[in-house]
Amino acid sequence: MTADDRALRALTEHVEQVALVDHHVHGTWAEDGDPVALANALNEADTEPLADPATAWDTQLGFAVRRWCAPLLDLEPHASVAAYTARRAELGEPEVARRLLGAAGVDAWFVDTGWSTGLTSPDGLAALGGGTAYEVARLETLAERLLPTLDDPGDLAETFAAHVEETAATSVGFKSVIAYRCGFGVDLDPPAPRAVAEAARRWADGVRDGRAPRLDDPTLIVSGLYAALRTRRPLQLHVGFGDRDLDLAAVDPLLLTPLLRRPEVRGVPVMLLHCYPYERAAGYLAQAFAEVHLDVGLTTHFLGARGVGAVARSLELAPFGKVLYSSDAAGPAELHLLGARLWRNAFATVAGGWVSSGEWSLDDAVRVASMVGRDNARRVYLGVDL
Amino acid sequence: MTADDRALRALTEHVEQVALVDHHVHGTWAEDGDPVALANALNEADTEPLADPATAWDTQLGFAVRRWCAPLLDLEPHASVAAYTARRAELGEPEVARRLLGAAGVDAWFVDTGWSTGLTSPDGLAALGGGTAYEVARLETLAERLLPTLDDPGDLAETFAAHVEETAATSVGFKSVIAYRCGFGVDLDPPAPRAVAEAARRWADGVRDGRAPRLDDPTLIVSGLYAALRTRRPLQLHVGFGDRDLDLAAVDPLLLTPLLRRPEVRGVPVMLLHCYPYERAAGYLAQAFAEVHLDVGLTTHFLGARGVGAVARSLELAPFGKVLYSSDAAGPAELHLLGARLWRNAFATVAGGWVSSGEWSLDDAVRVASMVGRDNARRVYLGVDL
Amino acid sequence: MTADDRALRALTEHVEQVALVDHHVHGTWAEDGDPVALANALNEADTEPLADPATAWDTQLGFAVRRWCAPLLDLEPHASVAAYTARRAELGEPEVARRLLGAAGVDAWFVDTGWSTGLTSPDGLAALGGGTAYEVARLETLAERLLPTLDDPGDLAETFAAHVEETAATSVGFKSVIAYRCGFGVDLDPPAPRAVAEAARRWADGVRDGRAPRLDDPTLIVSGLYAALRTRRPLQLHVGFGDRDLDLAAVDPLLLTPLLRRPEVRGVPVMLLHCYPYERAAGYLAQAFAEVHLDVGLTTHFLGARGVGAVARSLELAPFGKVLYSSDAAGPAELHLLGARLWRNAFATVAGGWVSSGEWSLDDAVRVASMVGRDNARRVYLGVDL
Repeated sequence: MTADDRALRALTEHVEQVALVDHHVHGTWAEDGDPVALANALNEADTEPLADPATAWDTQLGFAVRRWCAPLLDLEPHASVAAYTARRAELGEPEVARRLLGAAGVDAWFVDTGWSTGLTSPDGLAALGGGTAYEVARLETLAERLLPTLDDPGDLAETFAAHVEETAATSVGFKSVIAYRCGFGVDLDPPAPRAVAEAARRWADGVRDGRAPRLDDPTLIVSGLYAALRTRRPLQLHVGFGDRDLDLAAVDPLLLTPLLRRPEVRGVPVMLLHCYPYERAAGYLAQAFAEVHLDVGLTTHFLGARGVGAVARSLELAPFGKVLYSSDAAGPAELHLLGARLWRNAFATVAGGWVSSGEWSLDDAVRVASMVGRDNARRVYLGVDL
Repeated sequence: MTADDRALRALTEHVEQVALVDHHVHGTWAEDGDPVALANALNEADTEPLADPATAWDTQLGFAVRRWCAPLLDLEPHASVAAYTARRAELGEPEVARRLLGAAGVDAWFVDTGWSTGLTSPDGLAALGGGTAYEVARLETLAERLLPTLDDPGDLAETFAAHVEETAATSVGFKSVIAYRCGFGVDLDPPAPRAVAEAARRWADGVRDGRAPRLDDPTLIVSGLYAALRTRRPLQLHVGFGDRDLDLAAVDPLLLTPLLRRPEVRGVPVMLLHCYPYERAAGYLAQAFAEVHLDVGLTTHFLGARGVGAVARSLELAPFGKVLYSSDAAGPAELHLLGARLWRNAFATVAGGWVSSGEWSLDDAVRVASMVGRDNARRVYLGVDL
Repeated sequence: MTADDRALRALTEHVEQVALVDHHVHGTWAEDGDPVALANALNEADTEPLADPATAWDTQLGFAVRRWCAPLLDLEPHASVAAYTARRAELGEPEVARRLLGAAGVDAWFVDTGWSTGLTSPDGLAALGGGTAYEVARLETLAERLLPTLDDPGDLAETFAAHVEETAATSVGFKSVIAYRCGFGVDLDPPAPRAVAEAARRWADGVRDGRAPRLDDPTLIVSGLYAALRTRRPLQLHVGFGDRDLDLAAVDPLLLTPLLRRPEVRGVPVMLLHCYPYERAAGYLAQAFAEVHLDVGLTTHFLGARGVGAVARSLELAPFGKVLYSSDAAGPAELHLLGARLWRNAFATVAGGWVSSGEWSLDDAVRVASMVGRDNARRVYLGVDL
């Protein structure tokens, strides 16, 4: 065994055993999923049920499920789809979840509870997967729940701000899906109170007239961002790739530049999530703005064998203290496992290559693995500094 | 020979012998090309004759021609430009074409006949290269031929629609070069009949006043897209990189999102061609919209040794049933050969790497090679399902 | 030793000994730099002093400094930050600069003198690093120095044009930082003389009223570009990544397309500098427009171990006669060394891979190394054709 082999083995062993902090994740399925639901969960972008669910398996994600999850269900790697779904049904959702979540090796789950239909609670997730759960509150969901309780919707801003401040006591951070609701190409300056009050009344009127209560008014959403910023808690923003409700061109993180320049952002961690295909732009922002952090969660498992490139791109301009691990898994526990599995594989491959060529030392590679996988999240969200 | 070596050899052998469907191609030169014409054909983007044609050879494409085409003309790989062009002249265009087209291993050519000056007909291409030729009709060319035949240009829309419907009987699909004529950043909703009639009259007036008959009015072009969509035939769209008539920023496929959301598109295959440097955006659209397919033709041969990356990027978010092979070759048969040669090399390299690292099974790699190289095109255009 | 090994060794030896032309560089520190200044120099994008300078070392650039510069200061590769900064202080800035600049192997430095606070002059740089220095004049700096000398600011355009023409006699080219001052998304057509005169008076009035003399008026800046074009000297444009004074979305080189189409550009070399993350767009422009050249200076050292990808992306669509070497180093001599060191490493890796796989011949790889590292710059700026 050469010195190089020993170094790579040491790095891989370290990366394998880092107890991850998954700083952005959702619950897993609370009840048994059927094969059609599973196939649809393998397609993030299409908002309609797939005409032919079988096609969802002929993807990087589908291949990755068969490769990495099958052995954890006692099947051979690359088991057929039929064998996989049959075995899954045989074991039942709780056992599948226990096996796959457990194998993810996650010590802390920061759970976005804003979208939770059919999913376990944060504690339910930790009960199945081990470790501790923390809550991340979704701003738009908070507002949607608040609206019907108001006598005068014009009071929304004030009541919302108080509610957000209260929520900060029990949440490690806030999340916004402005990306899905109106994109980043809107006025990101703090809106005037009167404009917020008018927008809130229009929203309430619309809901009373039968419109869905989904918050998509930019004035209200941007107002919500500033309410969250005032709590000084980390603010998570969905960036890039997601389902087709969003317009991918409107969620380029560079469009956030005017917001990042605002004084209200100074000192508040801003977490750019997912970022595909804008990882390089996100990395630039992480170097340019002390507050900006990024991850490539969601991207990693959807790209499967190609996820290694996304992890590598996240390690270009961004200082290593600003890059975090997340899975953004939601639903089938395959996604929670793959987030961790593919990140470990990719990090070991990428950093291992640099150790082999002599560009990074083994010690540095080990240290950065711990930073990205665990320590950066603990420092930013929990105030734990080593 | 290790198991890994055997698997890679099996994959390479399979990829080598797949009889390709080139779902977007043009004719080859009908008459002898001279060295200056050949050099200019190695530069896609510059619309003016090259001041120093020798510079065209110091490119990835030039190096690829010398590497992969020279041996088929009985020269050593990397033969000098002088030796190559001398040997080409000695053999004559038909013999060069027979050798290079034949070695491409293409079984079906879907020929865009909209730009054909000095090029063979579809049947002429198949006579030289083997296999069967099919026609893809270019919408803008159809309109340009129709205009002078109309008594009242205000009737264009109706006459054009009838003409397109008739053409659908003899074409496997339609192609639009809206990318070159006005870009995607125009109103992509169906234009009102009156607006179309007015635009048609303006166009006819302009031509009568001496303007070139080139169709570049967005209203007419978009109206033409909807005429094609009504036939339910696959609609090919030039996307990304091309010559400098286009504005590369205006042909980002994400600008097509409003069109892809239209009900008229439901169920009609939309084929995004070339896509460089927007392969990732195209792959996102292919996951988000059941209708969207993509290829990296043109890109592959222009990038030469770097084409492997474009093929890899086309295999990220797009379901594998939505990725197709094409060459987009036009003119010298070197391009027809290189499209196929470099795609085979790249696919075997990329998928072979995943087989080696255990991320894909050999069976899956073989299956996806057949899908991308042949079966997806046969299913989408010819209705042949395996 | 196999034939492949011999070829790679021959290529590496050639790449190591090419006497580089650094066609865009700044001076090195004229006085001793302290550790805080050094840490801040490792962050290009943040315009404020880093709250925690230690974080600047946990970056690709920081790791590259420790890997490649430490041995030149008699330390082990990957020496600790503490050891590195201590040794640096011990040697003193002139000795550090002599060692690092000398090891860069640069024969000609084309020095942008527009930003020079605390930096050596061109001759001072060459005295420390060997070779010959040439001056590149920065247009905005010339204008800022000229303004206070004018009796009537309305004469700016004419006086500036004369000054630029005079400067052309002693400069090998001009540089513009329009990217930093207003971005490329402005009207790039030649402004009317009256509009220029009015803008100049507004600028002068503002300065008289206490505004900083920094030129950021698009009309004046664009007018300056045309003054430089008239001299026919190469025109360097900062493109892409830089500090956060710029808006990264506004410095996409595709936004320069309208300028590149202007007749005034015909025959004048336009040099796109840095280009990250827009290397592919820049390469397209280099194929489409005979005048366009590009480099990936600045990018190479900021990306460290990932810089190899940037060098590879610069070798896609751009003809090899249009790709140049630069460091864009400014300040600590580590950056001058790393520009050269990482470019040599990356070029040998990238082209070596193509030689190994048989896609490029060794002769071609050697030839392209000389073109990019030296000959293209000598031809474009100095008129030296081989």
